[in-house]
Amino acid sequence: MKLEVVTIGTELLLGYTLDSNGADLGRELAAVGVEVVRRTSVADRPDAIRAALQEALDRTGVVITTGGLGPTRDDVTKAVAAEIFDRPLVLDPALLKALEARFVRLGRTPMPPLNRTQAEVPQGASVLPNAHGTAPGLWLEDGERLAILLPGVPRELRGLLVEEVLPRLRSRAATSGLTPSVVRSRTVRTTGIAESALAERVAPLAEGLGPLTLAFLPSVAGVDLRLTAWELPATDADDLLANAARRLAEAAGEHYYGLDDIDLAAVVLDLLRRDGHRLGVAESCTGGLVGGRLTAVPGASDTFLGGVVAYADAVKTAMLDVPAVVLAEHGAVSEPTVRAMAEGVQRRLRVDCAVAVTGIAGPGGGSPQKPVGTVWLAARVAGETRTLCRMFPGDRDEIRRRAAQAALDLLRRVLV
Amino acid sequence: MKLEVVTIGTELLLGYTLDSNGADLGRELAAVGVEVVRRTSVADRPDAIRAALQEALDRTGVVITTGGLGPTRDDVTKAVAAEIFDRPLVLDPALLKALEARFVRLGRTPMPPLNRTQAEVPQGASVLPNAHGTAPGLWLEDGERLAILLPGVPRELRGLLVEEVLPRLRSRAATSGLTPSVVRSRTVRTTGIAESALAERVAPLAEGLGPLTLAFLPSVAGVDLRLTAWELPATDADDLLANAARRLAEAAGEHYYGLDDIDLAAVVLDLLRRDGHRLGVAESCTGGLVGGRLTAVPGASDTFLGGVVAYADAVKTAMLDVPAVVLAEHGAVSEPTVRAMAEGVQRRLRVDCAVAVTGIAGPGGGSPQKPVGTVWLAARVAGETRTLCRMFPGDRDEIRRRAAQAALDLLRRVLV
Repeated sequence: MKLEVVTIGTELLLGYTLDSNGADLGRELAAVGVEVVRRTSVADRPDAIRAALQEALDRTGVVITTGGLGPTRDDVTKAVAAEIFDRPLVLDPALLKALEARFVRLGRTPMPPLNRTQAEVPQGASVLPNAHGTAPGLWLEDGERLAILLPGVPRELRGLLVEEVLPRLRSRAATSGLTPSVVRSRTVRTTGIAESALAERVAPLAEGLGPLTLAFLPSVAGVDLRLTAWELPATDADDLLANAARRLAEAAGEHYYGLDDIDLAAVVLDLLRRDGHRLGVAESCTGGLVGGRLTAVPGASDTFLGGVVAYADAVKTAMLDVPAVVLAEHGAVSEPTVRAMAEGVQRRLRVDCAVAVTGIAGPGGGSPQKPVGTVWLAARVAGETRTLCRMFPGDRDEIRRRAAQAALDLLRRVLV
Repeated sequence: MKLEVVTIGTELLLGYTLDSNGADLGRELAAVGVEVVRRTSVADRPDAIRAALQEALDRTGVVITTGGLGPTRDDVTKAVAAEIFDRPLVLDPALLKALEARFVRLGRTPMPPLNRTQAEVPQGASVLPNAHGTAPGLWLEDGERLAILLPGVPRELRGLLVEEVLPRLRSRAATSGLTPSVVRSRTVRTTGIAESALAERVAPLAEGLGPLTLAFLPSVAGVDLRLTAWELPATDADDLLANAARRLAEAAGEHYYGLDDIDLAAVVLDLLRRDGHRLGVAESCTGGLVGGRLTAVPGASDTFLGGVVAYADAVKTAMLDVPAVVLAEHGAVSEPTVRAMAEGVQRRLRVDCAVAVTGIAGPGGGSPQKPVGTVWLAARVAGETRTLCRMFPGDRDEIRRRAAQAALDLLRRVLV
């Protein structure tokens, strides 16, 4: 099954909001064998929405929209869809009741009059109940065309997608009598190697991937290798992907750290857990990003105890016992300092593993000897400290994120 | 001037990559008066790219593409564009030389043969030098149509856009003799108030905005109010926007914290700096996110000294002096604990301001008394501590990000 996605919102075209909904839809739909063949973003303007919806329906017959179902006056998707399907908007009494009940539950009565328009639906549309917000989804179908209208708030969209849309699409595919075929992907994740260097390593394999496609996806976290099986029977696709992923991981060698959407922080926590370690972090230029990455993983608390954000030199001394003389002689961005930070946090937090980062994220603070992008890293495991100096390209944000990733990767390499 | 954007990459449709390039283009182009009327994302497939490019050129005559210019075999944009403009691909000797020189500079010789295809260009195309990577941009024009092909790596795209594309578009608009008109936006940022409650507050103003449009953009950071002036002369647009933004900010009251893309962390740092304060943070459930937000702001180091990530109770006691009896009697997520955390970090770091967060981010750890989403916050300024309990909706990631935002907002309110 193929469909198109239309994401609606002036903020998307003006660039003030990232289209995370479009990405969520792509991922969830691919996992159940539905291919998004095109995604179009248009502004909150009836004529732009009408054109995009009409063209998408003409091309594939099925379209999912996000956005424009909220209570505010910039929300017009529902009216445009009703018009394309030639249906009047009618008040749905059950929907009105549910909306009012939700406002009572939240202690916000009476319901604002604005929200009343959310109880209007195109005649004959199925209402997809939204357990996470006020705007329900709508399923609008005639003999030839299907439009699924979903709200733009990411949490509400994800809820409706998983609870209402995917089950309906699956049962629709099941009754259509088509051979069940899927679009599936696997990602081989690498870090610490450039795209073209990685391409050379995997080149001998690339020709033998058969019906799979291979994409290189560079980001601040590293280069992901994305394998995709297009419209194969599910078992074939899974076997081919598993096999190819294994070979790519081997070719990437020490740069490979995991499959699919696993985060390097989760890989590190698993390694620590396996060996019964407990971790503390000491961060300067990353200011908490390494701790943030680790604690983003549910269950981190059994191995990650905490850390010190030692942004100022005074805090490096007071909270991590970095000798003032080391700071004075070598500077805050140096091998002796990062080593002292790792050893200090390990001792202070009474843990056996530690990771430390100090660097120059810019835009100011660089010098010819230590330009912006210079980062010192340390990982301490079982009484031994390994240090590393890296030079990162990019702006302040990129340098900080690359530094956090490199700190986690240094610890991974020491643990492996 | 109107144009369309086509972002190319299978990973975009499969949802493994957020289309940050599309957002960057929208923002930068709007700022110089170019309106992106539609953005289309397609996979790395020649037929899909061809259709999207052709349709975009038919509709608006000008298209910017991102992606598909790299050295790996999934990159095909250049060949498709050459075909649409009916031009052969020819090797550009200057480009080849520059590419080879870049590899020498990076100490990676000889250049991989794969990168050689990057020196091929459609005959007659202008090469846009890429100072940040190996794939140059291309400017392909005939009497009626203009295609601007840019690489997909975000840093390279941004560099080419600012250094090459925007100046050319501006001079093109200047010579076309059109009245200079712009698309401009201003954003009024609010936090701690729901979309529909905010809509009611600003409803009396909404009718009087004249030619401006108003969009409500809810996110975990709060609700942004986006005002947009479409195709007005620059001075009129600026005046109208400034005036309307002021009135919206007044209507939002205590929930308003700043304009445009200013981050709440920068607002807080400015307030601290104004009064000569120095700040420390104590984080449990956010694990470093508050420190990460603050240190993302260049120049944070003059007011933000650091903090303690006290994820485990043992660290709350060892590093922040939270009495074990308080933890035992009230629990880690409680008013007495968050108060002790704020006071502990203030004392230990020898600062006069502190902010603390402790909560239950889930998915585990909730109870009927303290369900997932319960977060205690504290802000300490000038010897006084203010505490606050909030209940946040969403998943672990959302709860943590909402908690970090609320912690910064509590400090802002105390400081204002």
